[in-house]
Amino acid sequence: MTERHLPPPLRFLLAARRSELQGLEALAGTCELVVRISALVHALQKERGYSNLTLCSPPGRLQPTLAGLSQDAESVEAQARQFLDGEAADSAQGSGRARLLNCIAFALFRLDELPALRRHVRDRSVPVEDADSRFTQVIGSLLAVVFEAADSALDPGVTRILVALLNFMQGKELSGQERACGVTGFTAGYFTDTQKARMLGLAANQRRSFDTYAHYAEGAALQCWAELQQQDPPVQRMRDMAQHTSSEQRVEGTLAELWFNLSTARIDAMRDVESLLAEALAQQCNRRIAETRQELNDRRLLLSRYADHASGRAPSMLYSVQSRVVDTPPPDGVGSELKRSILDMMREQTLRLQRTDDALNAVRGALDEKKRIDRAKLLLISHYGLTEQAAHERLQRAAMDAGLALADVARQVIGQLGSQSGG
Amino acid sequence: MTERHLPPPLRFLLAARRSELQGLEALAGTCELVVRISALVHALQKERGYSNLTLCSPPGRLQPTLAGLSQDAESVEAQARQFLDGEAADSAQGSGRARLLNCIAFALFRLDELPALRRHVRDRSVPVEDADSRFTQVIGSLLAVVFEAADSALDPGVTRILVALLNFMQGKELSGQERACGVTGFTAGYFTDTQKARMLGLAANQRRSFDTYAHYAEGAALQCWAELQQQDPPVQRMRDMAQHTSSEQRVEGTLAELWFNLSTARIDAMRDVESLLAEALAQQCNRRIAETRQELNDRRLLLSRYADHASGRAPSMLYSVQSRVVDTPPPDGVGSELKRSILDMMREQTLRLQRTDDALNAVRGALDEKKRIDRAKLLLISHYGLTEQAAHERLQRAAMDAGLALADVARQVIGQLGSQSGG
Repeated sequence: MTERHLPPPLRFLLAARRSELQGLEALAGTCELVVRISALVHALQKERGYSNLTLCSPPGRLQPTLAGLSQDAESVEAQARQFLDGEAADSAQGSGRARLLNCIAFALFRLDELPALRRHVRDRSVPVEDADSRFTQVIGSLLAVVFEAADSALDPGVTRILVALLNFMQGKELSGQERACGVTGFTAGYFTDTQKARMLGLAANQRRSFDTYAHYAEGAALQCWAELQQQDPPVQRMRDMAQHTSSEQRVEGTLAELWFNLSTARIDAMRDVESLLAEALAQQCNRRIAETRQELNDRRLLLSRYADHASGRAPSMLYSVQSRVVDTPPPDGVGSELKRSILDMMREQTLRLQRTDDALNAVRGALDEKKRIDRAKLLLISHYGLTEQAAHERLQRAAMDAGLALADVARQVIGQLGSQSGG
Repeated sequence: MTERHLPPPLRFLLAARRSELQGLEALAGTCELVVRISALVHALQKERGYSNLTLCSPPGRLQPTLAGLSQDAESVEAQARQFLDGEAADSAQGSGRARLLNCIAFALFRLDELPALRRHVRDRSVPVEDADSRFTQVIGSLLAVVFEAADSALDPGVTRILVALLNFMQGKELSGQERACGVTGFTAGYFTDTQKARMLGLAANQRRSFDTYAHYAEGAALQCWAELQQQDPPVQRMRDMAQHTSSEQRVEGTLAELWFNLSTARIDAMRDVESLLAEALAQQCNRRIAETRQELNDRRLLLSRYADHASGRAPSMLYSVQSRVVDTPPPDGVGSELKRSILDMMREQTLRLQRTDDALNAVRGALDEKKRIDRAKLLLISHYGLTEQAAHERLQRAAMDAGLALADVARQVIGQLGSQSGG
């Protein structure tokens, strides 16, 4: 008996399961995109760091290495774009993916700015701070895609790994920004008070991101991170050194390259954690798809057997639609037993879906804070015509002035501006 | 320039919008299903009421009318099934619809029990209470589909109408149960204390459901309901009368038919409100689909024009992927203006999606309480092997004993059993 001939309740029972399977398959595609994005972010972080170093150094010597790093980033970008081209063709399947697609559009828009930026760096026609912040914008738009992927995933296990990866990528990105800031300071021979505060903030926020990562990570990826942290002391010593410099107490400008190399070794090692997370992500997706497909097949077989049994030998209440013409009383023995099995199956499925929902809400809670901050920023941008950067600084200043956490200030902004525009 | 030739950021910007459009089209199908279900529920309510009256009356006289009502319900059911057959074929599109499909499976399963039930009523081989509760189970499973539709809708306007409709259908269903309970009491000539308490509870819960309805309803549907309520006094007088009966103070058994006719007139009139809501639902879906399609077309045109302009006359940063080979500096005048327009468009889209999300969460809040109660019931069923009815009674008894609202007891049950099974 094929599925098309199953009684309607059983057909819809299977359709529900198949809908879960399709969701998982789409999710596997999104995860693959995330993995490619994490590779691209890594390449861009490296290119940003080296481009900062190049712009801070005399022309010439570092140029060839930078050109190589730019090429690496371009080739990773080309791969990500190729994957996206395939995804775009699939977009017919993607109802409800509007936010993810919107984020991807924005990231692609930012990526399109890279060639001009690279040209400016090559010509040394851009200040190091500008080059740095433009790379950072591109990376930020890529992290936003990972965030959206984590927020829209429908499998708690996958969401958990995505939340871990997102927080790790954020921590790593803050390490990259710290590397850039350090290069500027060490090149100058000392750090201004603003630069010192920024270095402290970047280190503190790194710790926070990595703590959240450690909360959600498991297995090899967590183990690898624990081992990595044992290499932190040299970086920490240079951080301390930076805090003790001043225009009077300068250090050698050549320390910039040492700082760059130490930070780079640390950041490169972090890439191992990302690779383990990428592996875990693929495994979890494949495992859940295989499980769900198996369950779907088992269930299909079971239900066909029930249906054959019921229609062939003992027409039960369950198939009364087909037996309606005959309309004989069901032999309650067999009928009620089958009925109970199907009922149990439906209840089990409903309960499982409810539990999945609860687990999802629990894991997604980790994303709420960032959502609130983004929301507030966007409101500031659209109400006051601020740039992204200016909106971010405005929030940070307000938080500092009021002695509040960024997320709390964001809540206030949403309370004020969100209701205005919503009304 | 066709869409396929647009630069990637613009292509994904359009894909995001198209994803919204597809979501709305799927939602329109779900709404049509809900409208058919409300018609089926109405027919079954009528059949249940008359079948109760028939089982309480001497055999013969009422039988032909009941047969007619059964036929009506069967024909509405056949239409709903036909619609579902079309939907099932579409199920490839439906990732993420697992819960809705599961609910539909369950409702179909319950509907399959109707032919046997009708036979038992015809043979008078089923006690009136059993017949009543079996009809009520079928109706409950259909209301669950409407609930799931409301919970999964992604347009705040549609969700709002679905929440209004769901609450109205619940209020109307409680009116139907009150009609049945009243028929039993008036036929006997008096109401027991349990029956009196049940009549009071049904009236109070009706008010609550209709108040929630009035909170979410708008326009003609709200106006129609206000007018309908002016016909309540006769029903209210018979409710009062019921409360004053006892085994010593009996009333004429023939009052049962009067009560039935009064209640039926009231319930039939309620159907007008449902029809107005169905109309509002279809209008809202069509309006949103037309709007979104129009916006998509406008945007597609606009973006093509930008792209033509950019590639034909002034290659801007935006299209640097295509101009990468040439790699000439962008003429910043035109480039940055285009860039700003596209950025504004992306931000506007992001902000709109965020607002939609907020509005959805606000309207969906109305469903949380019922979700919690359902969840608790299901946990009781799966942990103690209770029937649906027994689980419901257990919750109600616990609420009464502790002097708590049903939703609060449900929260306690979830706290206990939910964590056990989750761990």
